[in-house]
Amino acid sequence: MKALVFHGSGESVWEDVADPGIQDAGDAIVRVDTVTICGTDLHILKGDLPEVRPGTVLGHEAVGEIVETGGDVRTVRPGDRVLVSCITACGRCRFCRESAYGQCRGGGGWILGHLINGTQAEYVRVPHADLSVHPLPGAMDSKDAVLLADILPTAYEVGVLNGRVRPGDTVVVVGAGPVGLAAVATSRLYTPEKIIAVDLAPARLDAAKRLGADAVAVAGEEAEPLVADLTLGLGADVVIEAVGVPETFEMCTRMVRPGGHVANVGVHGRPAVLHLEDLWIKNVTITTGLVDTRSTPTLLRMMAAGHLPASSMVTHTFPLDAMEEAYDVFSRAADTGALKVVLGEQQHDVLMVRAA
Amino acid sequence: MKALVFHGSGESVWEDVADPGIQDAGDAIVRVDTVTICGTDLHILKGDLPEVRPGTVLGHEAVGEIVETGGDVRTVRPGDRVLVSCITACGRCRFCRESAYGQCRGGGGWILGHLINGTQAEYVRVPHADLSVHPLPGAMDSKDAVLLADILPTAYEVGVLNGRVRPGDTVVVVGAGPVGLAAVATSRLYTPEKIIAVDLAPARLDAAKRLGADAVAVAGEEAEPLVADLTLGLGADVVIEAVGVPETFEMCTRMVRPGGHVANVGVHGRPAVLHLEDLWIKNVTITTGLVDTRSTPTLLRMMAAGHLPASSMVTHTFPLDAMEEAYDVFSRAADTGALKVVLGEQQHDVLMVRAA
Repeated sequence: MKALVFHGSGESVWEDVADPGIQDAGDAIVRVDTVTICGTDLHILKGDLPEVRPGTVLGHEAVGEIVETGGDVRTVRPGDRVLVSCITACGRCRFCRESAYGQCRGGGGWILGHLINGTQAEYVRVPHADLSVHPLPGAMDSKDAVLLADILPTAYEVGVLNGRVRPGDTVVVVGAGPVGLAAVATSRLYTPEKIIAVDLAPARLDAAKRLGADAVAVAGEEAEPLVADLTLGLGADVVIEAVGVPETFEMCTRMVRPGGHVANVGVHGRPAVLHLEDLWIKNVTITTGLVDTRSTPTLLRMMAAGHLPASSMVTHTFPLDAMEEAYDVFSRAADTGALKVVLGEQQHDVLMVRAA
Repeated sequence: MKALVFHGSGESVWEDVADPGIQDAGDAIVRVDTVTICGTDLHILKGDLPEVRPGTVLGHEAVGEIVETGGDVRTVRPGDRVLVSCITACGRCRFCRESAYGQCRGGGGWILGHLINGTQAEYVRVPHADLSVHPLPGAMDSKDAVLLADILPTAYEVGVLNGRVRPGDTVVVVGAGPVGLAAVATSRLYTPEKIIAVDLAPARLDAAKRLGADAVAVAGEEAEPLVADLTLGLGADVVIEAVGVPETFEMCTRMVRPGGHVANVGVHGRPAVLHLEDLWIKNVTITTGLVDTRSTPTLLRMMAAGHLPASSMVTHTFPLDAMEEAYDVFSRAADTGALKVVLGEQQHDVLMVRAA
């Protein structure tokens, strides 16, 4: 089959690799119909995640069809249309028992496109399939559904829930890329008083407005005074970091009010300075996190009910074999205006017919 | 009257100053009978808190007798024996309404010995007296009670509650000075599986054992392997920082397990490095905080009921006018073995007679 293989330091190639097969009785093999590229994939190419070995197939988000299952798989069977979640969960370890699937110690966690071959391929092997794929309602558009593989639960759990957004809050989202936009959209579920989005790119700030931001600011000189202004000088109740560089993280810690929350969602490759000489007295809570995807079933229902404006985050679609072009467009987002790029066949119409 | 006056950069003198008087109808004047010195006072002398102006009387912990009240004070009257809390609260601002008294915006918060004259004096003016002093049961020893002014609620709220200690947890307390020891003692209220205390001084580690630590380690090469060993390599559920230097804070972030909590209690004068390149994926929660003293009434009842081993933290007592000697002994704790030093008349027996 064809797959996007990481070759170290900035290089990846769409090339021939061996088809995956069942290795464990809990595995499923999924034919990838729809897949997307994550900002984290770009972090891997940048070298921020040195644990990713050259030769690994990238990608941890997909919609596809089960084509084979191991003998222990109970919840899905060949022919099922499923979401392949970015998090794989054994369901048996101490962390899985507390729904902390992202920290799974039983061979799961974030492994796809990280520690084992991922979804940017024609087929993918998903270990622990029972807890790691989610059957999809036939009517759900694949372009929407694939956003449930990572960015929506990540923004919701690591940003909104960890940040404890409450009705009436002022929420600042720093970084209006796909995850930041998903944080804007999912913050709205808690009816904050206002959401302020911060980014360098005007096009992303426009997208943030469409997804529910009440105010936007260009990162740099404009953002901090605006947040101060809109909070009577106090700072925001919740600040969500969705970039992953020290400068934006440090800005978040300056924009939070006493007693407020900084929820880090960004993937970082370098340390940041934590100004404890200012923060020790401020009763600030800082959270970091990899998504657990414990919210995925809920978000799936919310999306089916029309509560998540997902498709407005997708700016570009490509056929699966245009993977390298899609990476190019996604990585040059400042020029191309790319938010989420989606690849694949968008076969849901066909599958709906089959299901009927 | 006599008072300990801060003269900038490491200098303080026990000298004559004007007696305090009522300035606002919410004020009370308290005759200081028992007072103590806080590690934070040493941070002030070190220059970690540049907002403290030379000329300020230090100290934010006392037990004493109300000698005068302003016209608006309702809950105490002259003759009452009270605890003077380190936190003053207006009771009316947005933060006080949420019990976040430490962040009071109505002229309270931590002001005594910080922004206005404090308790290391023969008399102290306490603004917003209704919410800022606590009447004491006659039978309570002043040496015990004065620990409720700061270190016990600070350790409990900023360490144990912010760190969300739960039954069965492994708790590491870094720094076995008075606040760290109070964190050991108040962690026990939640019945953790084990408490590990870390310090440089063997005498402090002995004190930690007496107060309930199950294991102790000398900071440096010994501590991190011990914590790893006692947690099957996973790290501690809760790590409480009770020192206030970058090195110990950074150690705390290495000793916490995925999904765990680092509760910073230390007063910091310098920034720390936050290794987000390791932490972003670990689901760690870091909290900072100034105490709110919302727990003080509860801890007062707990102490009266014998649940807090307070007096074992007091190693030295002095008369009030030996303030400079007491500072000397407290600041050379490594040599003197000082934990909490208490000054004053310990007049509770006299007051008990009066109350009878």
